[in-house]
Parts: sequence; C-alpha cells; structure tokens
Amino acid sequence: MDEQPVNIATALASFDEHWSPKIIAALNGQHVKLAKFQGEFVWHAHHDADELFLVLEGEFTMEFRDRAVPVRKGELIVVHRGIEHRPVAAQECSVLLFEPAGTVSTGDASNDDRSSEGEWISE
Amino acid sequence: MDEQPVNIATALASFDEHWSPKIIAALNGQHVKLAKFQGEFVWHAHHDADELFLVLEGEFTMEFRDRAVPVRKGELIVVHRGIEHRPVAAQECSVLLFEPAGTVSTGDASNDDRSSEGEWISE
Repeated sequence: MDEQPVNIATALASFDEHWSPKIIAALNGQHVKLAKFQGEFVWHAHHDADELFLVLEGEFTMEFRDRAVPVRKGELIVVHRGIEHRPVAAQECSVLLFEPAGTVSTGDASNDDRSSEGEWISE
Repeated sequence: MDEQPVNIATALASFDEHWSPKIIAALNGQHVKLAKFQGEFVWHAHHDADELFLVLEGEFTMEFRDRAVPVRKGELIVVHRGIEHRPVAAQECSVLLFEPAGTVSTGDASNDDRSSEGEWISE
C-alpha cells in the first residue's frame, strides 16, 4: 500500500492479450484496470456496477441496443449499471477502466470464456 | 445519465483556475475530476477517502512527510486515506482525479480558501 507511481505505458507494454483486464490500482473498493480491445466483445450488463472506459490509444465503439457511440483516444464514457452494452474495436484499442473491485468483465454473460475480474499486473 | 463520451482535452480547455477541481463523471459513488495544479497546495489528509491522481499534462511532485515522489505525464499515484500529502507543481500540470463523491480537496485542512468538492463542468 506504499504510494508509488504507476507508469501506464509501461504497464500497457507488459501484456498483449485482448479482453484480459489487468489491475493497476485499487482505491475505495474500486479497481483501475488496463485492457486491450480488438474485435467484438459479448453483449452484457452489470447489475450492480457502473463502468468507466477511458481510451488511451486507438478507438472503439460502445454499442448499446439502440445506438452505437464511438469513443476515441482522450475520451471517456460511463456505462451505468443495468445498461446492456458491447464494446467493439475494429483495430486494437487500449483502455483504462474504473469499476468496483470484483466486477466481472462479461457481467451477466458470464458463460463467455473471456470472463475475468482482472488480475494484478506486476511491472 | 445518458451514456455520452466526454472529451478530456475539451474539458481541460474550458477552465483556467488552479486548485479548482471540475467534475466530469460520476459512478459508483465516486467522482472523476479534472484539475490544474500550479504552485504549492496545502498539507492535508483525507480520513475516509483514497485519492487517485493521473497526470495528463506536465508533472508534479507529491510530497509526503518523509519523501517526495515525482508524478509525470502518463503516470498515476494513489494516496491512501489517512496519509498526509501535499501536491506541488513547479509549472502548470493537468491532473485527472478519482475519489469518492463529496471529497473536499483540502481534506482535514478545510480552512484553506482553496477547499472544494469540485463543481460539474458543462462542456
């Protein structure tokens, strides 16, 4: 719990997997994660967690059931609990996530084999 | 609560004040804020809130009672509850903050005239 800076670029460079969130910080019961998106994720919702997505590199589209929202480098979007969504990235996109600790990436679609609560990254 | 992207650069360009956090998003009882640091802030601690500082532009030094930690663009640091700290920026530095909604910037030094819970920014 010692206060040390985390370099985001170094942490991003330490993994290649898509849809495999890495935890880089914890505070107030929340986790900060890094993830790389490429391709289509699964439709899902989180019934008890709001999620923030901040694009670090590239861009992705957040699909909702009634519309699709592009989220570009330097933009963030919050998806509130209960809202069905599906991130889709035509090219690889690096994203910082804020969400409650223990949030499973696939929410109520937990039979998807990409389900993950994230794992701590060691720089 | 409609899911819309927030452009961080646009939000940063909309204000000039130092030590005056602007709220850009809310989730899970937490606020995401933007702030510009320049000069020395006040020594303080938050007894019930951990705080995350992510440097967007420039750099600052997070002073603790026993050491000083530089935090540069692209780095983040978490200051846990109860830890006395003081951010100091030799030049202007833009920072994204993540902390519980209602966290006062000056913590237990609330007689400082820069005390603020942040105010919502309108893009």
